[in-house]
Amino acid sequence: MTEKDALAEAITTQGDVVRKLKSAAKPDKAKINEEVQKLVALKEKLKQLQPADGGNGAGVGSAPAPVEPGNRNLSLKTAKGTRDYGPEAMALRQRVLDQVVRVFRKHGAETIDTPVFELKEVLTGKYGEDSKLIYDLKDQGGEILALRYDLTVPFARYVGMGNVFNIKRYHIAKVYRRDNPQITRGRYREFYQCDFDIAGTYDPMLPDAECVKVVAEILTELGVGEFVVKLNHRKLLDGMFEACGVPADKFRTACSSVDKLDKTPWDEVRREMIDEKGLDEATVDRIGEYVRLNGGVALVDRLAQDEQLGRIKSAMEGLEDMRLLLQYCQILQVADRVSFDLSLARGLDYYTGVIYEAVLQGTDAGDEIAVGSVAGGGRYDNLVGMFNPKRKQVPCVGVSIGVERIFSILEAKAAGKTRTNETEVYVASAHKGLHLKRMEILNKLWSAGIKAEHSYKLNPKLLAQLQHCEEHQIPFAIVLGDGELSRGVVKLREIVSRKEEEVALDALVDEIRKRLVV
Amino acid sequence: MTEKDALAEAITTQGDVVRKLKSAAKPDKAKINEEVQKLVALKEKLKQLQPADGGNGAGVGSAPAPVEPGNRNLSLKTAKGTRDYGPEAMALRQRVLDQVVRVFRKHGAETIDTPVFELKEVLTGKYGEDSKLIYDLKDQGGEILALRYDLTVPFARYVGMGNVFNIKRYHIAKVYRRDNPQITRGRYREFYQCDFDIAGTYDPMLPDAECVKVVAEILTELGVGEFVVKLNHRKLLDGMFEACGVPADKFRTACSSVDKLDKTPWDEVRREMIDEKGLDEATVDRIGEYVRLNGGVALVDRLAQDEQLGRIKSAMEGLEDMRLLLQYCQILQVADRVSFDLSLARGLDYYTGVIYEAVLQGTDAGDEIAVGSVAGGGRYDNLVGMFNPKRKQVPCVGVSIGVERIFSILEAKAAGKTRTNETEVYVASAHKGLHLKRMEILNKLWSAGIKAEHSYKLNPKLLAQLQHCEEHQIPFAIVLGDGELSRGVVKLREIVSRKEEEVALDALVDEIRKRLVV
Repeated sequence: MTEKDALAEAITTQGDVVRKLKSAAKPDKAKINEEVQKLVALKEKLKQLQPADGGNGAGVGSAPAPVEPGNRNLSLKTAKGTRDYGPEAMALRQRVLDQVVRVFRKHGAETIDTPVFELKEVLTGKYGEDSKLIYDLKDQGGEILALRYDLTVPFARYVGMGNVFNIKRYHIAKVYRRDNPQITRGRYREFYQCDFDIAGTYDPMLPDAECVKVVAEILTELGVGEFVVKLNHRKLLDGMFEACGVPADKFRTACSSVDKLDKTPWDEVRREMIDEKGLDEATVDRIGEYVRLNGGVALVDRLAQDEQLGRIKSAMEGLEDMRLLLQYCQILQVADRVSFDLSLARGLDYYTGVIYEAVLQGTDAGDEIAVGSVAGGGRYDNLVGMFNPKRKQVPCVGVSIGVERIFSILEAKAAGKTRTNETEVYVASAHKGLHLKRMEILNKLWSAGIKAEHSYKLNPKLLAQLQHCEEHQIPFAIVLGDGELSRGVVKLREIVSRKEEEVALDALVDEIRKRLVV
Repeated sequence: MTEKDALAEAITTQGDVVRKLKSAAKPDKAKINEEVQKLVALKEKLKQLQPADGGNGAGVGSAPAPVEPGNRNLSLKTAKGTRDYGPEAMALRQRVLDQVVRVFRKHGAETIDTPVFELKEVLTGKYGEDSKLIYDLKDQGGEILALRYDLTVPFARYVGMGNVFNIKRYHIAKVYRRDNPQITRGRYREFYQCDFDIAGTYDPMLPDAECVKVVAEILTELGVGEFVVKLNHRKLLDGMFEACGVPADKFRTACSSVDKLDKTPWDEVRREMIDEKGLDEATVDRIGEYVRLNGGVALVDRLAQDEQLGRIKSAMEGLEDMRLLLQYCQILQVADRVSFDLSLARGLDYYTGVIYEAVLQGTDAGDEIAVGSVAGGGRYDNLVGMFNPKRKQVPCVGVSIGVERIFSILEAKAAGKTRTNETEVYVASAHKGLHLKRMEILNKLWSAGIKAEHSYKLNPKLLAQLQHCEEHQIPFAIVLGDGELSRGVVKLREIVSRKEEEVALDALVDEIRKRLVV
């Protein structure tokens, strides 16, 4: 299937989703809006794949729309690769982020924040080929700025610039990449990262092991399904390349080939290394022997006996790190979640030690969304020094949780409507002329810290008010009526059971509090 | 004092602050970093005031620094008008934002999120003269984008574009303005806004009054000192201008002059209206009579009798809105917090009805920071239609909390060190060789949901570990020693009191939980 066909199919499917939502008894406007946006994004992508009409540079899409007097015809869309998040999406996101933060805090982390844009030169030379994906700001006669591309480089700048020598921090914020958005797979140009890093000069593998634990705890608590945290070590990778006969100046490029093994079969990677990167066939085949290896402590033992690797000091250092890391993982009871995997390479240049990648294993066949990388990280001991006035290094290790993918997985799993408000009591009137009384009671509830709402109409219909409660999953309603009010009471209604009970106005706050605790 | 002198003085003072922090017994690196950044920002500003050396275009500041081999000399700073927020600043910010959200949620609001950048045309024509402060993104061969300038226009786009007809939402996010940063006054180019808006077709003043209540609750709960919420109405303002003889095409410009009255004396504003805006002296003096008026219901009654205004229908409509709003404020028990003030104008063009501004009244003389506007908003019934495909309007009213100023006020008030982590227990070792045991116990605590940490050194000194607890305000430490461990117990130490007690390892989790509840 060509990309065009796949898109056309996705558009049809998405169109069905929208039509179904619109035809519901009570259409959910926010949800429809979200789905329509996805549809629009798909159509836009299809349009980009098709050649512009006439081929004269001014495609159909850029023809000026008729202008209404006094009101230009705006493009009604968000920027390419971005979207709005309505109340339902936000409720889920907030819940997930709260869970992630809870784990970070359980491990003693503080939080910091850095600006959304940096001096461009701070970002330059950190992301290899992907630097072209950086969003630049327009030069408006001041500094040359760019939107942050990740949270690691700003963190290293913060640590280096501020002469911080140790910190354990988390940072949850959006980052920006001018990548080709893949809306259907939940890949956008603006997306959250959740980073946890430990900076400081410590004993080997103690902070590194805690990062594995943090990832395992988060993925387990979120319930995203089975996963494995792949582990490897940059020193070992480099040692392996050296042992196989890769010239030193080709370590990084060999590394970026190996990095593709999670998505590309060995044969293809092999061809790339030989044809494009100019490595010897014999060298590449030796690499091939190594990168198919994965396991646990037994693999460490086996590699420790490896004659070729044994001659390379840094490889043996990396291996000892791995041995220690696996021991610590055992004690932290995550040994069954990790796999020492020689094919793990990670794209970024700045890693210097252990590297991680958590991969979901999607149990159901066809469960496409629940497969793939959801967290990654590693040790980067030489990045902070670039930002320190005296070039002092502070060793760092950290992980980044790919929370957008997790949102998508949990969104797909979520059955039924997510609650988007926290209102505890709705103050309703049974007949006309009660809005002042409603406000008086509302004010009493608010003063008592009870979350409460009413209709902003003077004389709403009782049925409409109760329907509002049902739709918004508000658990209780107070129903006011002159008859009851003259006796100093109101009706307290439990929405789900529709049970009503009279409660004295004086006792209302206490009664509601009592019921909310249950 | 010239601006230059004022800056020089501020630099001296700030230098003292930094030196004092650095000379402390236990210097707080993060705090020092924050203060150094302020100092750097001040110096940069002073440099900008001074003419470049030699006047040949290449000022001293832009001379190329010597380049180290393999490592360019980066400017070690954040972008102009931005800053990093260290753990202490973040702890305070998070606390304040949580309080603000709690009030929004108490009033039943949901939350949404929109992208940090918008198509430039979405922002065009919404902010009058201030449009020049918008941050544009570089044209990298795609759409023309700009960073959001506020949260109101993106909200209106969300509502209009998505065919949403009613929503009560809050949105807490950063906005961007290329304004002249005033670092010493806490004014940055990247700053938070906390917006609460009610969109929907409702009866007069019911949502409007709730916005006043929300602002009053937030400012009261945060404890920022005495404040007043000034109220006025755009229809009444326009009616007043008409009654005074201002030509209709000069309403907006007259409005922007009146808007300056909170900072500028009447004489100056009067001169501006006559000399620069070309209004009649008699007209301006009539305006002068009105704008000195403020009060409550009595003022409504007085204006209702006003012959000139009485002839203008929309003015009388505005006045009836004000009467209703004041009545509702009475019922919501915020009447003593509001002031109907004919000098309140608000800069933005899109307001169509009630306008608000909350002003702090700083009780102490010289309490410069605790004075001025901390919230503002109003009704904008004609903004959403611009973003709706069928130009359908959805009336809106909302307020924005100026939370950056509130952060500054509370930061200045905060006595002592703010806690930046939530660690409950620190697992320490009394002597060498216990790191595996530490990890085993840590793992047990984490599994039980207890927030726990240890040293990332194999053999840390006991004193250093206990000092860490004191500095980070961690309430409990578990101290491991072979003697105790052989008997199946550990020492549980309360950090503040330094009291120690032996606890059986089996009972450790329960014992800690018990103590944490207290």
